[in-house]
Amino acid sequence: MRYSKIPDEAVRRLPIYLRGLLICSEQGLQNVSSRKLSELLRISPPQIRKDLSYFGAFGTPGVGYNTTKLAKQIRGILRIDTTNKAALVGLGNLGSALLRYPGFSAYGLQISAVFDNDSVKIGKIAKKVKVEDVSNLSALTKRGITLAIIAVPADAAQEVADALVKAGIRGILNFAPFYLDVPKKVKVITIDIAMVLARLPYYLPAGA
Amino acid sequence: MRYSKIPDEAVRRLPIYLRGLLICSEQGLQNVSSRKLSELLRISPPQIRKDLSYFGAFGTPGVGYNTTKLAKQIRGILRIDTTNKAALVGLGNLGSALLRYPGFSAYGLQISAVFDNDSVKIGKIAKKVKVEDVSNLSALTKRGITLAIIAVPADAAQEVADALVKAGIRGILNFAPFYLDVPKKVKVITIDIAMVLARLPYYLPAGA
Repeated sequence: MRYSKIPDEAVRRLPIYLRGLLICSEQGLQNVSSRKLSELLRISPPQIRKDLSYFGAFGTPGVGYNTTKLAKQIRGILRIDTTNKAALVGLGNLGSALLRYPGFSAYGLQISAVFDNDSVKIGKIAKKVKVEDVSNLSALTKRGITLAIIAVPADAAQEVADALVKAGIRGILNFAPFYLDVPKKVKVITIDIAMVLARLPYYLPAGA
Repeated sequence: MRYSKIPDEAVRRLPIYLRGLLICSEQGLQNVSSRKLSELLRISPPQIRKDLSYFGAFGTPGVGYNTTKLAKQIRGILRIDTTNKAALVGLGNLGSALLRYPGFSAYGLQISAVFDNDSVKIGKIAKKVKVEDVSNLSALTKRGITLAIIAVPADAAQEVADALVKAGIRGILNFAPFYLDVPKKVKVITIDIAMVLARLPYYLPAGA
C-alpha cells in the first residue's frame, strides 16, 4: 500500500478536489485559490491545503492551483489516469444499475466482467459484457482485472469476497452493509446506503 | 438546523458509532471502551471521544460507554428513534434496488411514496407502495413525508429537487453525481458512487 502514513480521509477527499477542479476548468478558470475551491466544495481552505500537501507541493502563493495541471496530478496520484478494469459480482437491481451507471468512465473505470449465480442470467450479454457463473470466478488478475464491486445480498457477500481475494483482487467496493473480513493487503470501501440515509433526519427542523 | 456548530463530519460518523455499539451489544458487551470501538471501526479513540463530546457527556472513565444506552442516545440525536417517511423519486434499476433494500428499516426509515415519469410504471404497486406520477409530486409534508431519495437520471435531478423543495421536503439523499442547488434550509447528502470507486486504484500495489 502506498503512502501508508497518509490518512484515508485525505485520500477520500482527492476525488472531491478533482471534481471541483474540473468544474473550475469548465468555467474557464486557469487558476483557482483554495478559498474558491472551498466555496465550491464546502471544505475549509486549510483542510484543502493540508490534504494536498501530503502528496506534494502544488500551487503558487497568490496565484493558486493550476486547474488542469492539478487535476492531472490528482488523477495520477489516484491512478485513474489509466483504465482500471473491474469485475461486478451480482446482477440484481443494484448490479444492473451499476452496470448502466454512466459516471464510472470519467474516472477511468471499466466494468469488464460480470458474475451472477442465476442460470437465467448466466451466458446473456449485459452492456456488451457476457454474464459469467460466479462459481467460476477465478484468475481475474490474468485478465487484467484488479478491482471488484460486490452487489450481492448481504448473506453472500463474505463468500464472494473470499473468492475475489483468491482471484487476486486487491480493491473491493462493497455494497453489503457490514465489514468484510479480508487480508490487510486488500482494500475494501463499503457504501452502506442506509447508514448515509440515517444521517438525514438529524438535519430536519424540530417538530418536522 | 440543530447544533449548527457541530461539524458534519462528526454527524457523519454517528451512524458508524451506532453500528459499532450494536455489534458490541450483539457480542454481549454491556460496556465498551473507545479503544475497543476504535479497533472495530478503525477510527482513532480521541476522534471517537471528540465526536461524541459534541453531543453530551457519555461514558464513564475506566468503564467506557454503556452499549445499549449510548446506542439509544445516538438514535435520539440522529432522530431515527421514530419512523421517518421518505419519498423515492425514480424507479429505474437504482430506485428498484433502493426500494428493496433491507437496511433502511433498521434506521427507522420507511419509503412510503414512489414517483416515476414512466406511464407503464405509474399506478402499479411496488413493494406495497403505489407508483405515482412525478408530475403530481406535491404536498408531501401533509402526508408526513419529510425526506426524499433522488434516483433519476442526472439531467432530471435538479428539476426533481426543485419539486421536492416546493413539496416541503427538508432532507434529500441524492444519487445524481453533482451538487443540487437548493435553499440552505434543505440538507442534501450526495452519494456519488463513481467518486467512491475512483479511490480504489490508489490502494492497488505498484504495477498492478
